[in-house]
Amino acid sequence: MSDYVPIAEDGAVLLDGEHDNYGGFIIEPSSLPPHPSVFRGSLRSSISQWKSELKKGIWLKLPIENAELVPIAVKEGFVYHHAEQEYLMLTLWIHESVCTLPANASHQVGIGALVLNIENELLVVQENTGRTKGSGTWKMPTGVVLQGEDIKDAAIREVKEETGVDTEFIEVFGVRQAHGAAFGKSDLFFICLLRPLSLEIVFPKDEIEAAQWMPFDDYRSQDFNTNSELLTRVADIVTAASEGKYTGFGPEWLCSGLHRRGAYFYHNTRDINNYLEDKRSSL
Amino acid sequence: MSDYVPIAEDGAVLLDGEHDNYGGFIIEPSSLPPHPSVFRGSLRSSISQWKSELKKGIWLKLPIENAELVPIAVKEGFVYHHAEQEYLMLTLWIHESVCTLPANASHQVGIGALVLNIENELLVVQENTGRTKGSGTWKMPTGVVLQGEDIKDAAIREVKEETGVDTEFIEVFGVRQAHGAAFGKSDLFFICLLRPLSLEIVFPKDEIEAAQWMPFDDYRSQDFNTNSELLTRVADIVTAASEGKYTGFGPEWLCSGLHRRGAYFYHNTRDINNYLEDKRSSL
Repeated sequence: MSDYVPIAEDGAVLLDGEHDNYGGFIIEPSSLPPHPSVFRGSLRSSISQWKSELKKGIWLKLPIENAELVPIAVKEGFVYHHAEQEYLMLTLWIHESVCTLPANASHQVGIGALVLNIENELLVVQENTGRTKGSGTWKMPTGVVLQGEDIKDAAIREVKEETGVDTEFIEVFGVRQAHGAAFGKSDLFFICLLRPLSLEIVFPKDEIEAAQWMPFDDYRSQDFNTNSELLTRVADIVTAASEGKYTGFGPEWLCSGLHRRGAYFYHNTRDINNYLEDKRSSL
Repeated sequence: MSDYVPIAEDGAVLLDGEHDNYGGFIIEPSSLPPHPSVFRGSLRSSISQWKSELKKGIWLKLPIENAELVPIAVKEGFVYHHAEQEYLMLTLWIHESVCTLPANASHQVGIGALVLNIENELLVVQENTGRTKGSGTWKMPTGVVLQGEDIKDAAIREVKEETGVDTEFIEVFGVRQAHGAAFGKSDLFFICLLRPLSLEIVFPKDEIEAAQWMPFDDYRSQDFNTNSELLTRVADIVTAASEGKYTGFGPEWLCSGLHRRGAYFYHNTRDINNYLEDKRSSL
């Protein structure tokens, strides 16, 4: 952003902003004329200017305080890209080539938490909402991974919230990818194994009808499980893992890139650690 | 939706819609009065009505054709929830309890594709955009998983688009979860192993600078890889897997739920198949 205020030939003040690395332009929200008719004039002149510069995609982020500018931008050809509570992002593709603007977030992410105690009892709940409400079905705790939250932390948090039990994250047993979830998005469901660090159960009565430690064989023989190929496979995995015959993906914190940013990489840590150890000891 | 048109005490036509299972109300977009001042009256009367019914969350989906209604809804207290090109979803929480409306999609999903031929050469590309542009760095093909697209299909599609090579999906080697990606969303990056079904390379010159089969050791010794703990770990995994000493998550199509909906479940299929086979043969 500069202090220089560019003026179009027709006298309208052009919208300020930044050129991006993809031939596009990102309008600076603080530069928006709040008055609708002034905004309309600036936007029209700016579009002419961007077209003459052969710009491709234009990004317009309208804070919710500027909601009255939305219909004006739409009339000039902008479409919606994504929105958060406090703003709406609109885009305009003004180039003759095919639009290559990136899509908005495509996936919701959830976790299912398998918590087994040393007596082979599974930590299960009956939910107060959703499809199994009132059916007496005992399920593993499940929940949504928040934006910015690590999968492993989400699993620990959901178990704590729904049952009061403290846990340690062990590994991801598997990931199901389904389509057509809320608002048409796709859904990734990480089924995780956790180890209990406490046993006492306390649950929030508005969300959870009941919670208990349940013998694993009683859990798996419920219709809800036997009617599901997915849950049948998961039950097999639990049994195999308890005999040391199944390995999932464990988290490892790894850095990469110029900025040495860290992130969890979930992979078969048992296999790779065994491999690297064998290699070292054979040297 | 019914043919019955409810009228408020002040004469305004109440907005039509459906009650949801969470104490909320979903306004029917086709019932919206297109004229702003009529909409304002209907919305105000409807909000009074919903409050008297102790409703919690109100969902308002405004098609982009009704953009002029956005500022009116915002003035009445609605906030943005999410948007797609052709509509904006707004919500209003009118209950005294804490807002429990679900968040919008939280994650972008990407794939990295490791394609090794029988001479232990990796299929690599130099990109025309992004951070490594012009640096001469050879990378595995990467790309975004589209909404509604299976991870395994996205990997096959990206390899085909960037190199022209046909592949068969084998398994997921690991998943990295990072935060603060585009528009503040989180990012899941699935690193996948694929087997080539063809060898000839053809690439689109606007997106890809160059593509080739590269001896794996030359690939892994690039600074871009040795400076990254993540890519170093991935290179170890490739080597271990080529000696049969690493197992990732393979896809299995499984049905579940009342509607027998199918989805891919990525898990350690080798471990679980071995386990189930041993169990069968021991009977």
